[in-house]
Amino acid sequence: MKKVLVSYGKNKEDWNKLKQLIENEKELSSTYNFVITHDKKELRNNIEDTNIFFGFKLDKKLFKKAKQLEWMQFSSAGVNHTINEENLASDVIITSSKGIHGKIIAEQVVAMVLYFSKGLNVLRKRQNQKIWKRDDVVNKQYQLEDKNILVIGYGNIGKEICEYFKKFNSICYGIKKHVKKSEINNVKIYKMDQLYDILSKMDIVIDVLPLTDETKNVIDKTFWKEMKEESIFINVGRGKHMVEEDLVKNSSHLRGLGLDVTPEEPLPEDSKIWELDNVLITQHTSGDFKNYLETSFKLFLKNLKRYSKGEELFNIVDKNEKY
Amino acid sequence: MKKVLVSYGKNKEDWNKLKQLIENEKELSSTYNFVITHDKKELRNNIEDTNIFFGFKLDKKLFKKAKQLEWMQFSSAGVNHTINEENLASDVIITSSKGIHGKIIAEQVVAMVLYFSKGLNVLRKRQNQKIWKRDDVVNKQYQLEDKNILVIGYGNIGKEICEYFKKFNSICYGIKKHVKKSEINNVKIYKMDQLYDILSKMDIVIDVLPLTDETKNVIDKTFWKEMKEESIFINVGRGKHMVEEDLVKNSSHLRGLGLDVTPEEPLPEDSKIWELDNVLITQHTSGDFKNYLETSFKLFLKNLKRYSKGEELFNIVDKNEKY
Repeated sequence: MKKVLVSYGKNKEDWNKLKQLIENEKELSSTYNFVITHDKKELRNNIEDTNIFFGFKLDKKLFKKAKQLEWMQFSSAGVNHTINEENLASDVIITSSKGIHGKIIAEQVVAMVLYFSKGLNVLRKRQNQKIWKRDDVVNKQYQLEDKNILVIGYGNIGKEICEYFKKFNSICYGIKKHVKKSEINNVKIYKMDQLYDILSKMDIVIDVLPLTDETKNVIDKTFWKEMKEESIFINVGRGKHMVEEDLVKNSSHLRGLGLDVTPEEPLPEDSKIWELDNVLITQHTSGDFKNYLETSFKLFLKNLKRYSKGEELFNIVDKNEKY
Repeated sequence: MKKVLVSYGKNKEDWNKLKQLIENEKELSSTYNFVITHDKKELRNNIEDTNIFFGFKLDKKLFKKAKQLEWMQFSSAGVNHTINEENLASDVIITSSKGIHGKIIAEQVVAMVLYFSKGLNVLRKRQNQKIWKRDDVVNKQYQLEDKNILVIGYGNIGKEICEYFKKFNSICYGIKKHVKKSEINNVKIYKMDQLYDILSKMDIVIDVLPLTDETKNVIDKTFWKEMKEESIFINVGRGKHMVEEDLVKNSSHLRGLGLDVTPEEPLPEDSKIWELDNVLITQHTSGDFKNYLETSFKLFLKNLKRYSKGEELFNIVDKNEKY
């Protein structure tokens, strides 16, 4: 009987919920030996003969001990925090939890864009000061209709974001690494090296890229200088795409920056980003929700069913692309 | 030649724009004698032989002098600020600028709802204090899908608001004064006296009512007590629907109140509403935009064309209903 290790049971409520979800799947629970770990020690003691792993992260040391490991599924969409030379070089299959974040992240992106486009940031500040002053806000606020919106990283989440903005009659553009078609669902598609051909025309730019060697630090001084006066930038990708110093020094001409992610998380108290007047920091809440664990674990069980039937898994991380 | 008085030319730029718009309409400009007033004095000196008036307001004193007046169109959707016993009792036709605010107000309502549903209010405050703390926000944030949304005042603007929320897969309910059908465009319609049958089930409640004798102070203690814990209230109707003291004392169980309108405007510095932690005040900006005058004046010219042909005008204010 193959052993499935679930590293997510620190919290008693979570432990019980996972147990319940496993018991609901009669066929799987009679095929596999599930172990839900309560703590790090239990994880360590169980890793050696584990065949399948589900969790947020498996560090190098534990991975080396896991000699029987065939497959690991991680609970996040991005896997940059848990891939390394060891597991990339191995034969172990890596899968992610892509696909469960689309709608919730898209709603958060719309929330952040409207926060700036409608001047709620300015009005909230005036409220603190009890100042009734509206003319400058009215003269600058705009509707999303006919605005140019660029999604950098047009994958699952990027597509969902465009679907939302299309409802507001915005004009959507997408950037993808591998471009097969120049248009998908009415969204014009460009390659990453065409970014600077179109960036300066955009009213709203949304970063949904994964973190890889190629995408690290791509948002630098040049990027900010190309961005239009009074435009909006949203990052729901990864904070390390942005060079912190360049952001702090070169983004004051923007109407707003909605940062769900930051170069360091938690953002250190001495980071200058906290104080930027045109920034809203949402603390990596965009893709998270109350029953997140339940949803991502159900996705794992779905993939496990495929595994048990010898079918191809979904959400396989390409070890060359690293996402 | 009938005289059309346009009371909107204080600002030189506005004056020129109005002049241009009139000149573009060859037929109208040769049929009518247009006067765009630069100031109050010019308005006073011109009112006596005016046949048609366009402006934001015409006060009682000037109205009494306007013996030749046949029709006045106001530049706002609501006319409560400019109707009175005198003009209601007269034969003068009153029309409003209903219909140009729908989309922009709907976008503002979505902006305010998402501001609270996504916890941006809480996160912005933490940013000021440089505190990275997210778990409580994640556990409380929700998506608009399947949420119950009630629009009180299901007219032009109310309909547009529902159209936006339907895009987020919310379930929409509407309250109308005169109910002919129990469902319009997938929105379940109720009468005003059924409000308390459904209010406590609603996750989000949006006030889009006009201000009349009937709607003044309808939002009182009872209203707030019926509203669900953690629900959201948005007012883009009129501030005088709300009893200020009742609001201040009885709405702390709400997740958020987005008030585009307040009982007094500007809101006096000593109003306690400024300080309520769960309130966002947007200073009556929701229906306003940069080229508002141009848009509302074009609507007037459209109605004037009908007038010149003897056709029925649109947006006629019902003098019994007062809206």
